[in-house]
Amino acid sequence: MSGIVYDKIALIGIGLIGSSLARVIRQKGLAREISIATRSAETLETARKLGLGDSYSTSSAAAVTDADLVIVSVPVGASGAVAKEIAGSLKPGATLTDVGSTKASVIAQMEPHVPEGVHFIPGHPLAGTEHSGPEAGFPELFENKWCIFTPLPGTDEAALAKLTEFWEACGSQVDIMDKAHHDKVLAIVSHLPHIIAYNIVGTADDLETVTESEVIKYSASGFRDFTRLAASDPTMWRDVCLHNKDAILEMLSRFSEDLASLQRAIRWGDGDKLFDLFTHTRHVRRSIIEAGQDTAAPDFGRVPKKD
Amino acid sequence: MSGIVYDKIALIGIGLIGSSLARVIRQKGLAREISIATRSAETLETARKLGLGDSYSTSSAAAVTDADLVIVSVPVGASGAVAKEIAGSLKPGATLTDVGSTKASVIAQMEPHVPEGVHFIPGHPLAGTEHSGPEAGFPELFENKWCIFTPLPGTDEAALAKLTEFWEACGSQVDIMDKAHHDKVLAIVSHLPHIIAYNIVGTADDLETVTESEVIKYSASGFRDFTRLAASDPTMWRDVCLHNKDAILEMLSRFSEDLASLQRAIRWGDGDKLFDLFTHTRHVRRSIIEAGQDTAAPDFGRVPKKD
Repeated sequence: MSGIVYDKIALIGIGLIGSSLARVIRQKGLAREISIATRSAETLETARKLGLGDSYSTSSAAAVTDADLVIVSVPVGASGAVAKEIAGSLKPGATLTDVGSTKASVIAQMEPHVPEGVHFIPGHPLAGTEHSGPEAGFPELFENKWCIFTPLPGTDEAALAKLTEFWEACGSQVDIMDKAHHDKVLAIVSHLPHIIAYNIVGTADDLETVTESEVIKYSASGFRDFTRLAASDPTMWRDVCLHNKDAILEMLSRFSEDLASLQRAIRWGDGDKLFDLFTHTRHVRRSIIEAGQDTAAPDFGRVPKKD
Repeated sequence: MSGIVYDKIALIGIGLIGSSLARVIRQKGLAREISIATRSAETLETARKLGLGDSYSTSSAAAVTDADLVIVSVPVGASGAVAKEIAGSLKPGATLTDVGSTKASVIAQMEPHVPEGVHFIPGHPLAGTEHSGPEAGFPELFENKWCIFTPLPGTDEAALAKLTEFWEACGSQVDIMDKAHHDKVLAIVSHLPHIIAYNIVGTADDLETVTESEVIKYSASGFRDFTRLAASDPTMWRDVCLHNKDAILEMLSRFSEDLASLQRAIRWGDGDKLFDLFTHTRHVRRSIIEAGQDTAAPDFGRVPKKD
């Protein structure tokens, strides 16, 4: 289908994203060799059993040796430590990228360790599911998804073009963005929704007047839509919150301000204000459907198939 | 499939719920005759064109004449006016029910008008989609959904049994609940999620630093999950907010309190607290899947089918 883009690719971290990368690289033949590293011996053993790569190591430095492309897929809080560990073993001319959901922090953590002659191109594939770990990956994860690069000034054009070719071969569409803007955009389209989802599930779980079994039994009336996001990987999301703090706090403040105003309208029975807001939000949904980001088919949550 | 449960059923209001009822009653032969009333001549004409009933009127009083079951499917704020209008035309021995999302308010509005000898049994099918109007209905809407009754003290057993038989024939499972408890349960499983969804979509739409087209383009990373709820019928949701005020304000206060605490953890970098919350919420999702309320298949929003 596609052809070799890099001779050897090293995958540092082999969770949902890393293991999906391993699978699509193998499926489309994008590399001659895949080396895999993860800190946990248990996770590494799982990756080995799944046959995700050609070599396996708990040492990131060992895995990156001779690699033409290194993809770091770890919780964003671990980026600096990984960069430090692999710095001395990176091949001159190699490309180093990551998949982190926050970019300013990852750049601040990794850039100081990147040796002269290595092309560091920060990246973020907007792809994932609510499952995590090496078993959760699948080769189609990146299909029709966006991958955003936030290149540093003076980035090598050829290296950038090759990394673009790689992600396009994985099925994604590549976008270029400034790191600060990336962090603001993601704060509103991804980070805030996840935080709100975690929060509402937590609130529901703490009620004395409504039991958990009632919440679960009647969850199809709206609540269920939030629980999927709130089942996402806790380590990843802790790190996102800690490493995109400013943009997230800004979005949270605005959200809370708007919610206070909505709450006031409910308390004082301001029906016109409620109606205006509830009408106004409809056009956003319409635009999302028009942009092909969701289907217009009616849906009240997914109904499990009957056996 | 099923048989006649009521000779004549009057449907007051012919939106998503009313028109879905018309379709399932016809499909399963649950009545000999369906009369339809709605205030809007235009909506009535649409219902007529769709062939949803046997007779059509803009007068609710006319439609309920001789009806054995009257189902009021209007925004909850209009319940009182409808009850007043039909009171003098209800057949002795008839059953009067509704489908409103709030029960204490609907009962307070309707009960005073219900004549002696008419069985008023408040009901709430937990079913709907983000679409509205007579064209949006379909006969399977109530399949495998809950329908909650909040009967008044002294409710006639036979009338309740017959209404139960009717909803079961529509495919639903019937539950009995106290009206105040119903309003609290729905406030957390349905009303709060919708309000939060409307609010976050509103917040995103108001940003100066991130454009609307960016929000839409990258919406698959979490935001999209909220937009479906935020596309629901504005009139219905305005009325829900105004008529379940106390329970909604209670849930909103708790949600905001929890969110302030979460925001503080982000601001002060309390990773352990974030990790605990994000881990804790996972079991709710697991329980929902175990209860058959959603599937475990990974999903990152629905992907539109390619042509």
